[in-house]
Order: sequence, then structure tokens, then C-alpha cells
Amino acid sequence: MKSVEWKDQVLHLIDQTLLPAELKIVECHTYQEVADSIKTMKVRGAPAIGVAAAYGLALAAIHFAGTETGKMIEELRRAKEVLARTRPTAVNLFWALARMERVWQDHRDKDVKTLKAVLENEARAIDEEDQAMNRRIGDFGKELIPAKARILTHCNAGALATAGYGTALGVIRAAQEAGKEVQVYADETRPLLQGARLTAWELMQDNIPVTLITDSMAGYLMQQGKIDLVIVGADRITANGDVANKIGTYSLAVLANYHKIPFCVAAPLSTIDMDLRTGREIPIEERHHDEIRRLGNLQLAPKDVKVYNPAFDVTPSSLIEAIITDQGIVKAPYEENLAKLFKGAGK
Amino acid sequence: MKSVEWKDQVLHLIDQTLLPAELKIVECHTYQEVADSIKTMKVRGAPAIGVAAAYGLALAAIHFAGTETGKMIEELRRAKEVLARTRPTAVNLFWALARMERVWQDHRDKDVKTLKAVLENEARAIDEEDQAMNRRIGDFGKELIPAKARILTHCNAGALATAGYGTALGVIRAAQEAGKEVQVYADETRPLLQGARLTAWELMQDNIPVTLITDSMAGYLMQQGKIDLVIVGADRITANGDVANKIGTYSLAVLANYHKIPFCVAAPLSTIDMDLRTGREIPIEERHHDEIRRLGNLQLAPKDVKVYNPAFDVTPSSLIEAIITDQGIVKAPYEENLAKLFKGAGK
Repeated sequence: MKSVEWKDQVLHLIDQTLLPAELKIVECHTYQEVADSIKTMKVRGAPAIGVAAAYGLALAAIHFAGTETGKMIEELRRAKEVLARTRPTAVNLFWALARMERVWQDHRDKDVKTLKAVLENEARAIDEEDQAMNRRIGDFGKELIPAKARILTHCNAGALATAGYGTALGVIRAAQEAGKEVQVYADETRPLLQGARLTAWELMQDNIPVTLITDSMAGYLMQQGKIDLVIVGADRITANGDVANKIGTYSLAVLANYHKIPFCVAAPLSTIDMDLRTGREIPIEERHHDEIRRLGNLQLAPKDVKVYNPAFDVTPSSLIEAIITDQGIVKAPYEENLAKLFKGAGK
Repeated sequence: MKSVEWKDQVLHLIDQTLLPAELKIVECHTYQEVADSIKTMKVRGAPAIGVAAAYGLALAAIHFAGTETGKMIEELRRAKEVLARTRPTAVNLFWALARMERVWQDHRDKDVKTLKAVLENEARAIDEEDQAMNRRIGDFGKELIPAKARILTHCNAGALATAGYGTALGVIRAAQEAGKEVQVYADETRPLLQGARLTAWELMQDNIPVTLITDSMAGYLMQQGKIDLVIVGADRITANGDVANKIGTYSLAVLANYHKIPFCVAAPLSTIDMDLRTGREIPIEERHHDEIRRLGNLQLAPKDVKVYNPAFDVTPSSLIEAIITDQGIVKAPYEENLAKLFKGAGK
């Protein structure tokens, strides 16, 4: 199962809006199709969005019909802008686009054919590196998981949200592969139900025991002593360790804090935005009101009811036990330790 | 709008499973139909269930075809058992059934015709008293509402959940009638979406400003300083002030506590079960897994995924700022003050 797959210079995506009812592969032949797939959340999850956007730029390069490198770079800039406008919160998107841009800057004196090749290669590298990073996140993170653990997760930070293996679910996979006895509670994650549709489905494929609950049940489970650990992914992490992630994450962090349950975040370094000091600076995407008022053909609420629909919230680092990255586990003081990590990674 | 209405010896119920798409009235001619309507949640809300159950026993009496009072009481006992088996958590159900039983006990030497009349009258009295109690709850509770208040509520503790006016929403109505500027945030309340379907609809009917959110957004709103007060209803309150209410209530109470926001409960005295010492003794109803896996014709999750679906949770009284009853506002220490209240009410 690969959420994002590059085959014969076409980007193949699992249409995640249709899961689990239907496993349908969408083919993107142009960067516009990639942008549309990101916006409509056919592909979602911060790392997977980054990989898809990189392939989007590769497609823009490959389908450039001219012979002048300057014109091609103009076209790539247009494509980059369109891709950047799809979703504002996940930083991996901007990180991947900037990395692709560096490549065409570095090769701006080369011919069109060479540029096409290096850009395709760079997108493939981003894809492969993401898979490798998730394995490393899993390797580091599994040490935090008790031998017998009941783990709560929110949204989908799994293979579907990445180039493969997953961040939060990667840690869970690695723990199980290491012989630990894990049991997962998955929040359904309204409004788009990524937990019910994607996390439950993905874990069942891998025979990892999973129990589905509504988002409102997490506190009650913790009160009953049924949760040993909470682990989630991230869409953007700031220099002080604040974490933007799917709406509802902050509530879980407060609940975990109240019940003295460790609350952990798993994400690659590319999710950490050292340009932002705190979570207050992260733009929070608001999505369409009908995501809450309607579901499929069902009207769930009065059709003209006022709605507030932020897609993400920000969890302050004070509520976070550990951030598990591909370069190691970071704990408080986050500002200091994240800076050290980036220095060590040579970034 | 009356969720439970007695007309020409037939019980008329708004089918709350169809709102807001359709406003359909269901007629119950027998106690079995009433029991079925409670079980399938055509009628829901602790006080409304109590009133409906009382009318159910009135129907059992009215349609008794014999002439012997002893046989009639046997039939009433059977009806009481069927009605008691519908939903285990809300205490108003058992309270109303016990109150009806006292009436037939007190009149067991009377003829069938008399007994039919007194039981019908008693059910009507329970209905009318519930409406009056909600008005009194509103009168007491409005004093707790600031002149300008953004209020978060969960599930539906409104006119639809009672014989009229509502408990939590009754307090909000009374505050607005007293000239206060209220603005309501309604949790959609998964899995059955009573907040989206019923609270949003009911408040819009009364022109009370309401904004719908998913359950997972409450913490984020509190973090942003957008909530001044949380107010919810109750399905059962124990002698120490612990409150069983719709699943998700406990999470809200913890979140409110963390953000230093008052968390209030509104309920008539009939919701308080002085026979139970603490919330640990309250039976918590677990409902069908498909309530979470499916919605209408939609499959929301893998169809064989394991599910946990408790319908209620218990909020310890330590997290509750005030319990607003029809006999006044109760604050900590709850054990002492609830006992005083019951003594004062002569119960």
C-alpha cells in the first residue's frame, strides 16, 4: 500500500476521500491535477503532501514543451505558486517546494532536458528519504513504548499520510515489530473522519489491534485508566516545540496532562519550521462549513447553521512529553534541544 | 414545539432521529410503542424520557380491557418492566415509573375506571411539572450567566429533551429573556449528533445565536478565550454531585477546569439519585457499534472494525462549579448541600 507512487512519469495516488469503502487509484498527469488532489484531500498528511507536491513540480518540468531553460523556470515558478496555495498549515509542502526550487536554481545554467531529469530525481529522493525517515522515527520512537501499551492516536499519521510506514503509526509498527504488545485506540477524527476511515483501515491491514472511538470518548478512556500513551503526528512544529496538528490534538494533550499520561509527537525534521518562533505564528486553515453540516448525501445539521471549522489546532510544547524525529527524540527544553538537533543535522 | 404531547389519549412524539431534515410526529397508542420510541431514541433526553414513560403507563392502563383491578395492576407491572428495560442510565425514567407505581398502589382498592383516570392525571402532572421545573431552573440559572456570555453546550438539554423549555438550554433561554447577550457554541455530539441535529435547530427556531463545532474543537475554542461558561444537562446525578451525562461531557469538564472556565450542570431534582453515593455506581449504557461505523447509508469505517461506544460518561463533582436545580443552585460541598436541598424539598 503506497499512498503516493511514481510510475512511468505519472503520479498515482490512493484517493483517500473514498477509503475505506473503495480503494481507488487516481492518476495525476499535470501539476494542476496534483494541486487539486492536495486541496480536495485525495492525498493528505503533511509528509505525503510534501512528496506529492515535489512530484507535482517534476510533472511541470517533464511536460514543459519549450527549449529555453529560463522559460521553463518561469513555468516551474507558476506551478510552485499553485501548489503552495493548496493548504496553508502543513510545512512539509513548503519545505518540499523550496527544496525543488533550490535544485532548479542550482541547475539554471543547464539545458531543459538535464533540468527535467534532476527535478524528477529530486522528487524521487524526497519520496525515498521520507520512507527512510519514517523507519528511523519508528526506531527511535519504539523505545518510548512500554512492553504492553494501549496507545491513543488521532487523525491518521500512518503510511497513508506519508511516503510509507507512517510517523505516529510508524512508531506503533516499529514497537510491534520489536515484539511489543500494542493495542491502539483510534479517534474517529471529525469532521473528515481520517481516524475511522484511514487509521482503522490501515492498522487492520497490518493486523495491529485497533478499537475505534468518537473524539469525545478520549477523556472517559483516560479516566478509566485505559490509555498508557498518546501519540500523534504533526503538520508543523515551531522552534519552541509548539505543534500544529489536526483539530482535536490540543484537547487530547490537555486531557493527557490532566491524567498524567505521556503525550508524544512523531514527525520528520522537515515538519519543523525553525523560521517560526512559536505556534501563534502558524497559519491555521479554516475549511468549508459543509464539512460539518453535511456528510455524503446526509444533512447532519440545519443547512444554514453557522459553523466554525478550523482544520488544525496548536499544542504548546509544555504539554508534550517528547517529539520523536528521524534524528532522535527531543524533550524539553525544546527551544534549546531543537536548535541543537538542527545544528547536528547540519541544517 | 413540544417533544412529548398528550392529545386525545394518544402520545404524540417528535421523531428526533429525523430532525432537522424532517419534522415528523409519531403517535404511540400502546406502551410497547412508547418503549420502542425510547429505545430507538425517537424521544430522548432524561426528563422527556421520564414524561414519555409515565404516559406509557397511562396507555397501559387506558387500554386494559378487563374489569379487575388486580389484573390491571399485573398488566401495569409488566408495562413498567418493559419500559424500565429501554435505557439504563437516565434516572428520570425510573423516577417517573416509580411515581406512577405509587399512584396505583395508593389506589389499589379502587375500580378500574378510577385507576385509569388517576394514572392519566398523574402522567399529565409529571408532564406539566417538568415544564414548570425547567422554568424554575432557568430562573435560578440565569443569575450565573454574565451580561455578555459565550456559552458552550454539549448534546441537547433543550426543549426537545424535556417536556418543554429545557434544562441547560432553558438557562440560556432565561438569560436571553432577561436581556443578556448570549451566544452559544454547540458541540455536534457524536455519534448521534444531537448537538448538530437538535440543539442547533432548536436554538435557531428561537433566534438564539448558535455556532456549530465538532466535539474535538472545544479545547481549541477555550484556548483562544472564546468560551465564558460551559453548561450541560444530566442523565443522573449521585448524592455526592457526580454527574452522568452524554459521552464527551467529562472531557469538556476537564478542559474547562484547565482553562479556568466555570462548568455548570442544569437538571431537575428528579435527575438526582440519592440512592447512589458516587458516579462509579451509575450503570453506563453501551450502544450498538454501527452508531459509530455507519451513518445513514454511509460506511464511515471498516465495517468489521472493533468499536467502543459508551453513551455516557461520569464527571466528578470536583470539576463542577454549580448544579442548577428547580429548587436552587447547589455548589460544593455537594454531598452536604444536595442532602439539605432534598430535606428542604421534603423528599
